[in-house]
Amino acid sequence: MTEQQFHRGGLLIVGLGPGGPEWLTREAADALAQASDLVGYGPYLDRVERRDGQVRHTSDNRVEIERARHALGLAARGQIVALVSGGDPGIFAMAAAVFEALESGEPAWRALDIRVLPGVSAMQAAAARLGAPLGHDFCTISLSDNLKPWSIIAQRLRAAAEADFVIALYNPASRARPSQIHEAFALLRELKGAATPVAFAKSIGRPTERIVLSTLASADPSMADMSTLVLIGSSETRLLPRSAGVRPWLYTPRLYGGGR
Amino acid sequence: MTEQQFHRGGLLIVGLGPGGPEWLTREAADALAQASDLVGYGPYLDRVERRDGQVRHTSDNRVEIERARHALGLAARGQIVALVSGGDPGIFAMAAAVFEALESGEPAWRALDIRVLPGVSAMQAAAARLGAPLGHDFCTISLSDNLKPWSIIAQRLRAAAEADFVIALYNPASRARPSQIHEAFALLRELKGAATPVAFAKSIGRPTERIVLSTLASADPSMADMSTLVLIGSSETRLLPRSAGVRPWLYTPRLYGGGR
Repeated sequence: MTEQQFHRGGLLIVGLGPGGPEWLTREAADALAQASDLVGYGPYLDRVERRDGQVRHTSDNRVEIERARHALGLAARGQIVALVSGGDPGIFAMAAAVFEALESGEPAWRALDIRVLPGVSAMQAAAARLGAPLGHDFCTISLSDNLKPWSIIAQRLRAAAEADFVIALYNPASRARPSQIHEAFALLRELKGAATPVAFAKSIGRPTERIVLSTLASADPSMADMSTLVLIGSSETRLLPRSAGVRPWLYTPRLYGGGR
Repeated sequence: MTEQQFHRGGLLIVGLGPGGPEWLTREAADALAQASDLVGYGPYLDRVERRDGQVRHTSDNRVEIERARHALGLAARGQIVALVSGGDPGIFAMAAAVFEALESGEPAWRALDIRVLPGVSAMQAAAARLGAPLGHDFCTISLSDNLKPWSIIAQRLRAAAEADFVIALYNPASRARPSQIHEAFALLRELKGAATPVAFAKSIGRPTERIVLSTLASADPSMADMSTLVLIGSSETRLLPRSAGVRPWLYTPRLYGGGR
């Protein structure tokens, strides 16, 4: 199914994974090689090897739905388009924007051959570096309130605390709205234990990669920027010491209630 | 960091992704080539190419912590061990079992060089085939009650409904406990809309791949077996028709409340 070639145009929504090329899947690498046109936000396109004969459509704005429409338009004109996305396009990335554009766009676009190519998402790369914090039930919440009201975010954080989920926070802060992550921590501090482990995983897989472990009580939320994935443990998430001077592992056991 | 070679033994916890080789990352492929020893459950090891000089330790039982101990023991004796895991080892797979084994095991194991290599998890492959159902906030719950009491599962399902998360259910049923998924649907039917989209994604990426779309009211939970990923939409998750005779796309928009 995935090896089928396009005979007319089509749209491949390609997940690059976070950081470097080591997390690219074989399917994604093949799609990038096969495409006639690459569409993407500049910093993502910069991560893709240049090939003769491929046309690059670099977007320098962050409006994802415009990029999605551009890619759909090219595919409708017969091009084989790779729309590149960081992480997994299906998780807070380009895939949903494409289907929004499809729903509101030209009826002919509905007949296009569209494929989503999954990738490693930021929370998975962060979890791998940390140990296994997502080893048990978890939830994934975007703190961006460009796209939903804060009341919905707050309701979801409260439910996540009540369910004792491990919580992965995407888009924790930006220059335009630095207060969100502070409000999220204030809310969670009322509902979860002070010693709950917290991790800030910044720019995982890139040269500026940085991981900070803390607790819910003592963590400084202002450490989080838009390239940071914030993980907040469940009541079971724990530290596991390694050798002296080495950051301990962080993991959530599969068993609930401490029995092992 | 990831290109560093082992000088003594070490343990690589390798995610194969679901299904075929197309979802293997470059890092995972390199690890499988580099290892002196492969440890894994038979069906996963069968997916790894054979190489001369590599020793295979095939486990035919499902007790993950025993496999983890075996792999740690080999690494402690100086072998370069790839412990293979389906999907992403960090999501309901082998990584948490390794850290459990490390916590309860020989103190010398704490000094071992251990690395988790993330992979595409089943929910991501299923989401990619379906469209973008995980395009907004979601939670991920294992229905296995081998490892936690049903009361915890029920509490998490209730909170997930209250938070209006998209819900990904792993390990929905087995021959030993066929009733879990029925109880989960009964609970969710009291809390969520009858028209909520539901998807059963079975054996994604394998020759027996099968996807069934339904609604919460009319879905038959007995369709789910241990190789099925069950996705239950949020109030925003919707179908997007394609050409006649083609399964509609399933996606969750990034915006909350229908504004676009």
